[in-house]
Amino acid sequence: MALTTPRTMPGVLELLPREQIAFQRMLDAIRRGFEVYGFLPVETPAIEFADILLTKGGGETERQVYFVQSTGALEQSGKPEHALRFDLTVPLARYVAEHERDLAFPFRRYQMQRVYRGERAQRGRFREFYQCDIDVIGKDGLSIRYDAEIPAVIHAVFRALDIGAFTIWLNNRKLMRGFFEGLGIEDGEQQMLVLREVDKLVKRGADYVRGVLTGEAFGLSGEVADRIMRFAEVRSTSLADAHAKLAALGSGTQTFEQGRAELAEVLETVAAFGVPESVFALNLSIARGLDYYTGTVYETTLNDHPGIGSICSGGRYDNLAANYTKSRLPGVGISIGLTRLFWQLREAGLLKAADSTVQVLVTQMDPAQLPACLAIARELRDAGIATEIALEGGKLGKQLKYADRAGIRFAVVAGEQELAREAVAVKDLRRGDQFEVARAELVKTLRVELAQERVTRT
Amino acid sequence: MALTTPRTMPGVLELLPREQIAFQRMLDAIRRGFEVYGFLPVETPAIEFADILLTKGGGETERQVYFVQSTGALEQSGKPEHALRFDLTVPLARYVAEHERDLAFPFRRYQMQRVYRGERAQRGRFREFYQCDIDVIGKDGLSIRYDAEIPAVIHAVFRALDIGAFTIWLNNRKLMRGFFEGLGIEDGEQQMLVLREVDKLVKRGADYVRGVLTGEAFGLSGEVADRIMRFAEVRSTSLADAHAKLAALGSGTQTFEQGRAELAEVLETVAAFGVPESVFALNLSIARGLDYYTGTVYETTLNDHPGIGSICSGGRYDNLAANYTKSRLPGVGISIGLTRLFWQLREAGLLKAADSTVQVLVTQMDPAQLPACLAIARELRDAGIATEIALEGGKLGKQLKYADRAGIRFAVVAGEQELAREAVAVKDLRRGDQFEVARAELVKTLRVELAQERVTRT
Repeated sequence: MALTTPRTMPGVLELLPREQIAFQRMLDAIRRGFEVYGFLPVETPAIEFADILLTKGGGETERQVYFVQSTGALEQSGKPEHALRFDLTVPLARYVAEHERDLAFPFRRYQMQRVYRGERAQRGRFREFYQCDIDVIGKDGLSIRYDAEIPAVIHAVFRALDIGAFTIWLNNRKLMRGFFEGLGIEDGEQQMLVLREVDKLVKRGADYVRGVLTGEAFGLSGEVADRIMRFAEVRSTSLADAHAKLAALGSGTQTFEQGRAELAEVLETVAAFGVPESVFALNLSIARGLDYYTGTVYETTLNDHPGIGSICSGGRYDNLAANYTKSRLPGVGISIGLTRLFWQLREAGLLKAADSTVQVLVTQMDPAQLPACLAIARELRDAGIATEIALEGGKLGKQLKYADRAGIRFAVVAGEQELAREAVAVKDLRRGDQFEVARAELVKTLRVELAQERVTRT
Repeated sequence: MALTTPRTMPGVLELLPREQIAFQRMLDAIRRGFEVYGFLPVETPAIEFADILLTKGGGETERQVYFVQSTGALEQSGKPEHALRFDLTVPLARYVAEHERDLAFPFRRYQMQRVYRGERAQRGRFREFYQCDIDVIGKDGLSIRYDAEIPAVIHAVFRALDIGAFTIWLNNRKLMRGFFEGLGIEDGEQQMLVLREVDKLVKRGADYVRGVLTGEAFGLSGEVADRIMRFAEVRSTSLADAHAKLAALGSGTQTFEQGRAELAEVLETVAAFGVPESVFALNLSIARGLDYYTGTVYETTLNDHPGIGSICSGGRYDNLAANYTKSRLPGVGISIGLTRLFWQLREAGLLKAADSTVQVLVTQMDPAQLPACLAIARELRDAGIATEIALEGGKLGKQLKYADRAGIRFAVVAGEQELAREAVAVKDLRRGDQFEVARAELVKTLRVELAQERVTRT
């Protein structure tokens, strides 16, 4: 029979088991952080009606959407009715609008699922990737204090992920727009366009952005461009410094003053949430490209790896679901693109190799000892210790090699001699040593060893 | 602006948060069971190359596949290159063949992901649903002992799910085929067709199946049909009874004897794994429709809800990935269709309402007390207690109502009076009582309460 070459589509990250375990531990840590901060789980279908996903009618988004058709629909060759979600925000908007009467507001949800984008195949670009999102959605209104809680969640999650020092950068769209307004850029559309150029500062550099702003498209004077560049250079080094730098901006339009007041309150409250001052800072270059942010905006970067870019971004929006409901639903949220982050950490050599989820291999050489092996495994499993049994048997050396290769720490050997002494041998493959323990003490002993390991790890 | 009606495609199960929490707890329990039994996590992309998914070339499967196309591909209107997986077995075969050199065999993987089928919209039929699969894949060979470990995992998982008494039914394809052979049905294809009719016994009844077997399509004599029906009626009530009933079948062909020996060994070893005799039994009507099973087959039913049908099925197969590799990869595995199971349990009123993942609501009425509230929440969260803060403020009654509606058990009230006494009030919304505790004792007290709750639950 002709073989089909086993392969996956470009732009997906498929992991070997030990990588998958490392990935799963990150997912678990993020979920634990989200839950401890009082967010509720939501999952939505990967397939949505195309008209739900594409209410904005085209553009970049539509070009990247994957449409879904069953064989029957394909044969009728009409316009596809269904498509795969390209983010978790549009499905959230649809979910909240659809279930509005059944939800309690403020509605705090977390969602950790894969999303799909028909990107061109390119290194580091993913067509399928995990997003880990939280949002707080209010009905009619939502206190700005929620904007300050978000960095507390980010802090808890990235501390738990243990991938090095990081900084949560804050800015405010009203402050930016008000600042542009004060420079004579009064049109809202034009403000957004300037804001998008500022958003390119890190990627394209100051010279490029200044050039665009003073070029044909914008036609700003060199002086105005310089003022924008100086504004975008503002960073704070402490909470007091942030307040001082906000004050030093001078007075401005109503929008500007509203943005400054919001930002000052958010920064103050972030500190009250217990986030260390070393972890968050003002950064007036943070803009976020998306139109729908209206107030606070966030980015998070790894201090030692600025090249990785923002690993967690988001902001405040005025109205989540205007396309689906007349209710006004303001909210604030962030998203972690975990697949890309994992890939980048791996590329940068920052991922620690994960041990196996399997903690013990019960070896087995002689069918006569099989019942004893099964009894040992049962006790370990009943005690919650993840246990594999070498049911195939064979040479002990081969079984130990298998355990070592698989990242299993302990191998239990219960041969005729050991069992005659009512004992078992335990090989610690990580430490490379071995000890004998009374058969009746095995579970207790391994429990203690594994608990110590957990303590050492954290 | 014209609103788009928020809605989901028929055939998906979208849950409200408290239902999602119940669902997530089931997923977690299954995953814990799989991991304790030494299975490793694998995730594969939802989108696969269509030629990978459809190697068998058409039939029922192809009609149900969802094809995936980006806008660009749609415009070129060629044959779709990509499709969504319809199960986790084909992606497993592709995964093992693709990563063969990087995997250690026997390869024990679990996979819990959604799959997609273009079913006609119908109550209780899902187009997107979770499958929770385990498989053990050997290279060249795989001990039959693994067939006996599978029921041990099923037992652990369904005991943990706590959805009532269940029975794991076992049969063996070789025994069935050998039995048919002994009745003169020697053609392999014909044996499969008879086997599929036997598989319909529960759904269609004995009269129907007997009618088909003696009808035009099969043309079996009444006597042969009766012997098949009597064979399929065999059930055991204990391990000894299973052995007795296997022995009572009389002697048969080589295939028959091989099947009987396998089944006897599997049953004996299942007991050695510690699975209570009340939980597993011989059932010679279990056939499983799929062609690719070659030995042991399993089904699992809820004793008090036979109408729900099998909630966990699978079996042994000779060669997992013949379409993708020349290596022979025999294996054994099972699948739990969790979305359907959850839906059926809900329909049958068997689902307990889940509490919120949020354990404590810190109420807040007066902005002057906000820092105190944030400090309380921080301590609770640092102690791993899932905590929400009523940042919006407002009337206490409204905040308590919110907590109650959301299924949050404890509300902490730290008003001016309480704080002056260095105390906080705790309302237990489940018990409907209230107590005051010293501010410094709050975390410890709630930790104890929540630990007791966990103990009571299990």
